[in-house]
Amino acid sequence: MAAAAAPPPPPSAAPVTLPGSIPSGHTLFTRIRLATNEDVPLIHKLIHQMAVFEHLTHLFSATTDSLSATLFPPNVPPPFASFTVFLLELSPSPFQPAQSNPHFTPLLKSLHLDLPIDDPEKDIFRSSAIDVIFNDVTIGGFVLFFPNYSSFLAKPGFYIEDIFVRECYRRNGLGKMLLSAVAAQAAKMGYGRVEWVVLDWNANAITFYEQMGAQILPEWRICRLTGEVLQAYAHMNL
Amino acid sequence: MAAAAAPPPPPSAAPVTLPGSIPSGHTLFTRIRLATNEDVPLIHKLIHQMAVFEHLTHLFSATTDSLSATLFPPNVPPPFASFTVFLLELSPSPFQPAQSNPHFTPLLKSLHLDLPIDDPEKDIFRSSAIDVIFNDVTIGGFVLFFPNYSSFLAKPGFYIEDIFVRECYRRNGLGKMLLSAVAAQAAKMGYGRVEWVVLDWNANAITFYEQMGAQILPEWRICRLTGEVLQAYAHMNL
Repeated sequence: MAAAAAPPPPPSAAPVTLPGSIPSGHTLFTRIRLATNEDVPLIHKLIHQMAVFEHLTHLFSATTDSLSATLFPPNVPPPFASFTVFLLELSPSPFQPAQSNPHFTPLLKSLHLDLPIDDPEKDIFRSSAIDVIFNDVTIGGFVLFFPNYSSFLAKPGFYIEDIFVRECYRRNGLGKMLLSAVAAQAAKMGYGRVEWVVLDWNANAITFYEQMGAQILPEWRICRLTGEVLQAYAHMNL
Repeated sequence: MAAAAAPPPPPSAAPVTLPGSIPSGHTLFTRIRLATNEDVPLIHKLIHQMAVFEHLTHLFSATTDSLSATLFPPNVPPPFASFTVFLLELSPSPFQPAQSNPHFTPLLKSLHLDLPIDDPEKDIFRSSAIDVIFNDVTIGGFVLFFPNYSSFLAKPGFYIEDIFVRECYRRNGLGKMLLSAVAAQAAKMGYGRVEWVVLDWNANAITFYEQMGAQILPEWRICRLTGEVLQAYAHMNL
């Protein structure tokens, strides 16, 4: 979990357009779309950056093959019925109007930026979407979510496992756009809840989530069975 | 969430077999099986009892229709791929060996009881399973769970939303049986984690879960968007 605050780039009296940067005072065009199996190499890099950010690389064992096999299995369920990834794409030029899609119409928006953004990993995170593959389109972040269930409401909801914006793009409202996209999808589907977790010492994130309208539930603690302890249950005499 | 401790019935010097009770010193036969749409009226009663136990009936709005529509929709996914319910059945006589089932072989076990259990709601919770409908089989509890996902592991897991044992049957290891059944299923499927939540003041439950091998994660807090705040996102200009 991270959409955390990094300090903004230092202001410059006379902004300079660096190679690979987006010019100051210009518009950044954004698109949120469903990820596909072709995006797995980039999703893998994003999840790895998130592990680095959280100082949890010792827990990181995902590979492109294991992500592909679990996020996009051979009989992949329709979007939103199982594990689902939205990618946030960023471009200096407008996206074409969304093609019709039975499951999700990509969300297009534009942002005004006061300060230039220098993206040192622009080439690494170039979008592989077929309709923009020859354009200057970068993956800025992602959100991974899946259905959960409230038995009291007898309604599904969404649980957000990860929300991540790459460091150079933070503090521009992009995390809010990703979270809002999931909330809007849940609301349109008549779902009852959107839930996620936050570290109790991450005051910036808690403030951000409260501003989005979220309640923080103070009394609940997560319990986890994992590793060899979990595997031992496979052979237990039940 | 509840598999909480209720005090055992008072010991009696000369146990008496009451009408509707299971004789002292006898064997209680248990079966854990997948629930079906036919079980929804009983699942509804169990969830309602759980809401009463948790003093949360003001949040309870499930109906048999809404449960049926969401747990067993027309194109119901295979068990374990979406919302899944295990029912715990109890009988004074042995269950027949499990019929072959492509998804899950019911788990059979027997328990020795020192004290008789008087079940005042035996008739209300009579099992509707076709193979035991003429037998003296009672639903003692349930567990509702569904897949979750760890992106660091690139593996699915299970999230347990509810685990509940009816009051008169508590403190006999039945909650442990239900939780173990989910853990065993996760381990057999090669899943990475089983997770659930517990209230931080529920020391008995925390001790119980730790004895099952669970870690309690102290730093994470649940964030929730729900109700009108969530619905407002459907109409937000994203």
